[in-house]
Order: sequence, then C-alpha cells, then structure tokens
Amino acid sequence: METKAVKSETKHQIISPSQMLAHWQGHRKLTRRVIEAFPADQLFTFGLGGMRSYGEMVKELIAIAGPGVKGLAIGEWKELDENLDLGDSKEKLLKMWDETTQEIDHWFPKISLDKYQETVLAFGQYEDKSYCTLLYFIDNEIHHRGQAYVYLRALGIAPPDFWER
Amino acid sequence: METKAVKSETKHQIISPSQMLAHWQGHRKLTRRVIEAFPADQLFTFGLGGMRSYGEMVKELIAIAGPGVKGLAIGEWKELDENLDLGDSKEKLLKMWDETTQEIDHWFPKISLDKYQETVLAFGQYEDKSYCTLLYFIDNEIHHRGQAYVYLRALGIAPPDFWER
Repeated sequence: METKAVKSETKHQIISPSQMLAHWQGHRKLTRRVIEAFPADQLFTFGLGGMRSYGEMVKELIAIAGPGVKGLAIGEWKELDENLDLGDSKEKLLKMWDETTQEIDHWFPKISLDKYQETVLAFGQYEDKSYCTLLYFIDNEIHHRGQAYVYLRALGIAPPDFWER
Repeated sequence: METKAVKSETKHQIISPSQMLAHWQGHRKLTRRVIEAFPADQLFTFGLGGMRSYGEMVKELIAIAGPGVKGLAIGEWKELDENLDLGDSKEKLLKMWDETTQEIDHWFPKISLDKYQETVLAFGQYEDKSYCTLLYFIDNEIHHRGQAYVYLRALGIAPPDFWER
C-alpha cells in the first residue's frame, strides 16, 4: 500500500533513492541465487573462452559494492582491492555477499539526494557523476551475471529466471 | 558545460529523464559495437550451452525497445513480436537497430515525469511501475550483451570494453 510519504518522496522523479536501493538489492538477490547454482568445485575454476571464473567476477562485485556505496555516502575512498581472502570457498563467498548486503542497506540511505549529481573520484581513480558511478556498480553486476548464465548452461545447469528478483 | 536549465532539471533527483535517455543510448552504442564484432556467419548461428544465438537475442531487444518506449509515452501497446523479418542478415539487424535508436530518441522525451511512478501493463501482459519496466528494458539488454561477450571470447574475438559507451 502506498503511503502519502512514499508519494511525496517519489513525486517528480524517475526513481527515488529507496526505490533504487530496492532495485539493486533485487538484482543482488538474483545474483546470489546464481552463485548458489554453481557447484562449489566449479565456481572458482570453470570458465569459457579464456575468461575468469564466476567466483573471481563475484569477488570484483563485492570489492566494488560495499566500499563503493560507503564512498558515495561519505566521500571516503580506498584503492579497489579484489584480492579477497576466501580460499576459493563458495560458503565464504556467500557469507561475504550477505555482509555486503547489510553494508549497502546501511550506507545507501546516507547518500544525500544532492550528491547524485555531483562529480566523484570513485576508488581514487574513476571520475564521473555519482549517479553514473552507482549505475556502473549495478550494470557491471548484471553484465557479469549474464556471463554466469552461459557458464551455468554450459555446465548443464538451468539458471534462475532473469525476471525473478 | 552545465547550464542553469540542466541544474534545475536534475535538482532533487537521482537521474533526470534526459540523463536516463543518454545512459541507455550509451549502453545501446556499446551493444551495437558488440553486434558489429560478430562475424556475419556466426551472429545467427553460434551459441553455447544450448542457448540462442546473439542475433536472436538482439531481435528480442529490438522488439522491446522501440514499441516499449512508445508504449510508456502514449499508453499504446501491442503484443510483443520478436519474429522480425531480417533473413538473418547482420546488415539488416544493424539497420533496424539504428531505426530503433531514432524511435527511442523520438518517444523517450514524451514520457511525462509523473508517468514513471504509475503502474503500466507493458505489451498487454507485464504489470509493473513504469520506471521498473524501463529499467527492465535496459537491464535485459545488459544481461544478454554479457552473454554475447562469452560468445565472442569463445569465438576468439576480443569484445569492446564494457566501460566504453
């Protein structure tokens, strides 16, 4: 049910911050199911056409998401570090994924609405408007998850439906 | 250079309609380069894991994009029709892609700002808020393009960089 507060928040804009957060977390739920669909012994080893395993791609997504949203919120950036110490464990990857979910929920609402149109130097090296940087985080996740769909199909596994969030 | 008009349009929102249009058309430029990267004799034949060829996926994207934006703009929806008569020609596919680019540029600015928060029954069957429907069009394109990256790599072809728009 839509409250007056929601109507006021969403008036005169394509998408409100809380809607963008829900949109991304919806995508992240699907990504989590895709990670789960991989056999543990294929997640960090299987690749096609010389490409990285999906486990390695997910490390990149995790390295970006939590620190990225915190950076957008308070302007604190460190260098991007994808070398997560997970011992190529599917269980640890999923645990870190869930921790990131909480980090995003914590920091996202702290990005002020005016911030999105400001230019930011993400991770000390990627200059763009904040909204473009945020969309990059989400789009990059969708891009790599699309690749994981091919990996799963090639492994004979049916991936979850794209429209299920 | 940012004008006062742009500042006024983007105030108090994550992303303005003209920025969303530019964001999507940026993605579509990249998608076009990915289509171009396929050898003509592989575009409609090559697949992995029993999946469709990228040419077939692009037909879906074309069937959605132009009619979808027109539908969001004026509420006129037909059933989704992916059976485009292209004779599996790369040249014809690219021509139709470019026509869709013009359709999007024509209809997108006609989507009123209030419309995005309204519920719509896209193509007579997919019910959602308009902003979710629009994001679905874009996300679905990114999803399938990610799959095309694997196809190209498996064919020994380096795809264009994801961040080049």
